[in-house]
Amino acid sequence: MATVAYQGEPGAFSEQAARGLFPRARLIPLGTFKDVFQFATKHPAAFGIIPIENSVYGSVHQNYDLLLRHHLHIVGEVKLRIQLHLMALPGVKMDEIRFVYSHAQALGQCEEFLRTMRDVNVVAYYDTAGSAKMIKEEQRRDAAALASARAAKTYGLHILKRNVESNHHNYTRFIVLSRRATSAQVNGKMSLVFSVKNIPGALFKALAVFALREINLLKIESRPLVGRPWEYLFYLDIEGRPTADHVRQALEHLSELASFVRVLGSYPIGKTIKG
Amino acid sequence: MATVAYQGEPGAFSEQAARGLFPRARLIPLGTFKDVFQFATKHPAAFGIIPIENSVYGSVHQNYDLLLRHHLHIVGEVKLRIQLHLMALPGVKMDEIRFVYSHAQALGQCEEFLRTMRDVNVVAYYDTAGSAKMIKEEQRRDAAALASARAAKTYGLHILKRNVESNHHNYTRFIVLSRRATSAQVNGKMSLVFSVKNIPGALFKALAVFALREINLLKIESRPLVGRPWEYLFYLDIEGRPTADHVRQALEHLSELASFVRVLGSYPIGKTIKG
Repeated sequence: MATVAYQGEPGAFSEQAARGLFPRARLIPLGTFKDVFQFATKHPAAFGIIPIENSVYGSVHQNYDLLLRHHLHIVGEVKLRIQLHLMALPGVKMDEIRFVYSHAQALGQCEEFLRTMRDVNVVAYYDTAGSAKMIKEEQRRDAAALASARAAKTYGLHILKRNVESNHHNYTRFIVLSRRATSAQVNGKMSLVFSVKNIPGALFKALAVFALREINLLKIESRPLVGRPWEYLFYLDIEGRPTADHVRQALEHLSELASFVRVLGSYPIGKTIKG
Repeated sequence: MATVAYQGEPGAFSEQAARGLFPRARLIPLGTFKDVFQFATKHPAAFGIIPIENSVYGSVHQNYDLLLRHHLHIVGEVKLRIQLHLMALPGVKMDEIRFVYSHAQALGQCEEFLRTMRDVNVVAYYDTAGSAKMIKEEQRRDAAALASARAAKTYGLHILKRNVESNHHNYTRFIVLSRRATSAQVNGKMSLVFSVKNIPGALFKALAVFALREINLLKIESRPLVGRPWEYLFYLDIEGRPTADHVRQALEHLSELASFVRVLGSYPIGKTIKG
């Protein structure tokens, strides 16, 4: 049975993503993303799962940074539609609610809805599912949580209002981390990080190594390096598998041009699951 | 005298960015980013200022979306180092604090510090500076705010602990919006949005129009279009001015290849100011 560590409480979006990919795994809830990286580093047979990119809020640069500071491989991905519901203890009515708890980012995503609630204190909690858990454990009849349908089910809360997130096109891409790289995938993708000095055309030359070999790009993003003006880090996702000759040659060619290249992983293209 | 609208209360980071670029302007605080776009649309002589990109949290996709839905030009930019301080009424001591107020995102940025504070309720408020303002107005001796040094000064609060943000390399890039485009800049940059169908090499060909003319790229980011698999939106910042022949030709060339191109603006490269 696989073991998968994630950040948050049972009922968190990360748990949902983990469950979507590993239906029968033993799931380990941890406090921080760094804890997830450390767990996966210490346990070679286990996995970690972390969010890497959101359709509204962009790339999670801090998790790219953690990827660069650890020696783990990306071995899978899954996209999760983020849906947030207002939930309370069974029998509690809308006008009894004086406090709304959730993670700071989830509160931000529901700002428009929260403005329509009167005389309510909006309280930031360490986790979306954690706020549902607290309401259950403390039997708080004056409070509601903003969390996933899975959190409502996990803690026996009743959903008072569905989909209170401002943007309904809200998807988070999660990646699976492991000490062990996957074996080569036929229809896979690869994630790379590389840096080039910002001389005109440097990025273009770097991309040429893929285009000249008809390798498709799935994602590209530049990130200025703090403290190193005119030097950039690039995140790239390409279609292909590392054992294919043209991919291997493209990576060799890239290392001639870039000051730094790292393959973060090779893995099957993930599906989208509903939250 | 220029008029500049921003989102937030006096003392907000957006106000600080506006003040950095327009030292003597009349500044108008508004409730939402959309309000700022609408204000700048209605007042052709005025400006709006909005955050577009953060070094830790990535691009503000919702503001790119608002850029595409309005007919405004980017006419300037400035980078602000985000520093968050814990502040309270003068004379209030650390152990008297029972509540910490700030905007949800700022609370998220100070998560590690907040975990070290015991018996404290962390409360999400609509704005960083707004929470400092509330503490002043309600003379709350049991509460502190996480906000900028400018907010402390504006509302006469005392800083109890400086720089409690987890990541000190935290910079936000703000852009200035106007109905009127700037006149061509000699040493400027240009921001574009375009989309290409994801056929192998489509992006490469699109970038070739700049590389072949030795036009430097300053930012590139792909964003999958929700509901349109394999179609991407690209955000691009390039060096140059729209009146230069090679830039004009590159843009004509790009419109042959892309299904959609829009120049968001042409403006001088901005400086970095401290928060």
